[in-house]
Amino acid sequence: MLALKGAAIFGQSGGPSSVINSSALGCIETALKNENITKVYAMEHGIVGMLNDRIYDMTQEDAAELRLMLHTPSSIFGSCRYKLKDDDVEPDDYRRILEIFKKYDIRYFFYNGGNDSMDTCNKISKYMQKVGYECRVMGIPKTIDNDLAGTDHCPGYGSAAKYIAVSMGEIYHDANVYNSGMVIVVEIMGRNAGWLTAAASLADINSHGPDLIYLPEVPFDMQSFLDEVELIYERKHNCIVAVSEGIMDKDGKYISEYGSDMAATKDAFGHAQMGGLAATLARYIKNRTGAKTRAIELSLLQRCAAHCASQTDIDEAYMAGRRAVEAAVEGITDKMVGFECSRIDGNYKCDTKLFDLKVVANAEKKVPREWINEEGNGILAPFVDYALPLIQGFPEIPEEKGMPRYAKLKKIYAK
Amino acid sequence: MLALKGAAIFGQSGGPSSVINSSALGCIETALKNENITKVYAMEHGIVGMLNDRIYDMTQEDAAELRLMLHTPSSIFGSCRYKLKDDDVEPDDYRRILEIFKKYDIRYFFYNGGNDSMDTCNKISKYMQKVGYECRVMGIPKTIDNDLAGTDHCPGYGSAAKYIAVSMGEIYHDANVYNSGMVIVVEIMGRNAGWLTAAASLADINSHGPDLIYLPEVPFDMQSFLDEVELIYERKHNCIVAVSEGIMDKDGKYISEYGSDMAATKDAFGHAQMGGLAATLARYIKNRTGAKTRAIELSLLQRCAAHCASQTDIDEAYMAGRRAVEAAVEGITDKMVGFECSRIDGNYKCDTKLFDLKVVANAEKKVPREWINEEGNGILAPFVDYALPLIQGFPEIPEEKGMPRYAKLKKIYAK
Repeated sequence: MLALKGAAIFGQSGGPSSVINSSALGCIETALKNENITKVYAMEHGIVGMLNDRIYDMTQEDAAELRLMLHTPSSIFGSCRYKLKDDDVEPDDYRRILEIFKKYDIRYFFYNGGNDSMDTCNKISKYMQKVGYECRVMGIPKTIDNDLAGTDHCPGYGSAAKYIAVSMGEIYHDANVYNSGMVIVVEIMGRNAGWLTAAASLADINSHGPDLIYLPEVPFDMQSFLDEVELIYERKHNCIVAVSEGIMDKDGKYISEYGSDMAATKDAFGHAQMGGLAATLARYIKNRTGAKTRAIELSLLQRCAAHCASQTDIDEAYMAGRRAVEAAVEGITDKMVGFECSRIDGNYKCDTKLFDLKVVANAEKKVPREWINEEGNGILAPFVDYALPLIQGFPEIPEEKGMPRYAKLKKIYAK
Repeated sequence: MLALKGAAIFGQSGGPSSVINSSALGCIETALKNENITKVYAMEHGIVGMLNDRIYDMTQEDAAELRLMLHTPSSIFGSCRYKLKDDDVEPDDYRRILEIFKKYDIRYFFYNGGNDSMDTCNKISKYMQKVGYECRVMGIPKTIDNDLAGTDHCPGYGSAAKYIAVSMGEIYHDANVYNSGMVIVVEIMGRNAGWLTAAASLADINSHGPDLIYLPEVPFDMQSFLDEVELIYERKHNCIVAVSEGIMDKDGKYISEYGSDMAATKDAFGHAQMGGLAATLARYIKNRTGAKTRAIELSLLQRCAAHCASQTDIDEAYMAGRRAVEAAVEGITDKMVGFECSRIDGNYKCDTKLFDLKVVANAEKKVPREWINEEGNGILAPFVDYALPLIQGFPEIPEEKGMPRYAKLKKIYAK
């Protein structure tokens, strides 16, 4: 195959994570060093920046400053939730993208995100093929939710899982401090898949895990739940519950909606907006047991607490970004870089593997039912074997005046 | 002065912190090495364990395991909120304490906590003097709230402040990721004093601090608040607010109680939904600006997130525990070990200083009004000069399987 010469562009999309900038760095550093890549750009706010011709020139950045992206949370170039329609529905977007591709001689397109971002990659690639513009399109996965199909796991998940597990261990210590009883309900992200909530169980490797864990993979029954909490509370005079924001009853109604007269507010995609579930459950528990309760939402910090990232996740996120560039230069297109891992006798090994964009874009991976106990209130050993390697290593945080030193990019617009 | 020979006992009281066990270690290690101290004990659940004769024998513990207390959050021996009445009101408690003192030949009493714990120290000391039982009583301060009088600051505060500042910086990164607007309200602990909330401003040393900060030291006015948020939101299309849980209006009503005034927020039981303060403010902001809002409570993790402790705080907490033992052995009693610090030209120096228990027990230190801006919505440089030295240094966390390795004590009861 003939070498394809031209510029590369990178973009971030969807919700941020603690390590999405590590993937960005892997991609950008590799591209900057490659002789076939003439220029390296980054989109401001993902595809929206492409449509608005707001594109940063990465060759203007200081290399040492770029390196700090390894420990800088959230999407440093800005993200978006813009969903490309099909080109026969909204041809203007595609014409505009082609125009920008031509303007900057873009031949390499790297997009870092979740399901929707892989869909964006796929649509752009198909359009470019249709109009005969030669380019290579690669997806780099990112989602703390860990729900992308194909890949063993997703960059971003390990760090969120680590933050959750460490925080649960700390909450355990706090909860056990008085001899007066308390029920604590901790609400964890993950609308449809319970990967993040299951990570609470990792605190159990040194016996500091929650007593009960509820994932959206199993229909939630309020009466059973209250029975289960009461049983533990009567025995231990203490109970810690980890619960996914997305749990539903058998009729498909979100439990978070039980507590409110207000109609569920909807987000831009028409999804019901979560929140307040922990408080709702705490009220039910208080009514039933009379116990003192506390509701905790781990909230945004699950996806941005870079100070508690997993070093393994940082390294793998970088590797995914680097591999995307290497593969594209080798002539590969229309793929997402995922991971294939082995965990034999506790020896974890992770390699990159390429997946078809189309496969990834339209599937959602859930926690296998057999990794959840029969009662649906606890997590079994196979999950721990799966997830524990992903949270290894505390990163060494670059400091300035006792605070983490984040990357400060110049962000100079390309001409 | 003649050496006083006998056993030493240590106890923890009040709310936990990330470094209370570091003070415990400073106290216990120093006592174990001292030739005048014949035995070293720890009370289970503070003074309650004393009353119930549930006392751990520290000589049975492994030294290396004890060392891990430097990074183990929350009160490892258990805490209590038991308030001793005066001895003429409740003489039984005092008689019981004297009995235990005699049983174990306790001559050194160390108690680690906040205002109430210093009051407990003071009462026990006075009683022992009255009945002619020779012993030395020392208080070791602990409170994330930083509201103890006399001392420059309190062990526990630096770590909570660091967690808050680091988290605020991470939330800043997350909030700025989309180009769609958002108002985030972060609720921070501290019912009467704003030290913890003020720490949010430390994120500003690298420009990632909140836009608005409200402390309980200044009466809160809802209309001014909404004006201030709206102004920033219109300018930046984004706004981050840090607010103390204890803010009140000029009539002394907690703003957190405003939520129950709002109609249409009843839960499934027909109770007004109290929610948190952050949620209440977020609803007001949404009503006024129409902005997307998010309410975040940093909750318990402020006082137990040992993975993000300040190394300075860990070291100083240890120093306070050690000094308490040294001073008592020297013949000092009825004092609390506090800190005296200098911050000349950015050179921070912290020494221990002894304070009268009686002085500490009945006062409450607030953030000086002149460290808050005139509008009452921001923090000024003198606070940063004061607090920044206290959050220096990320600790190196002992790990086991990628999770923090906490101290596992044998906790063998004394006979």
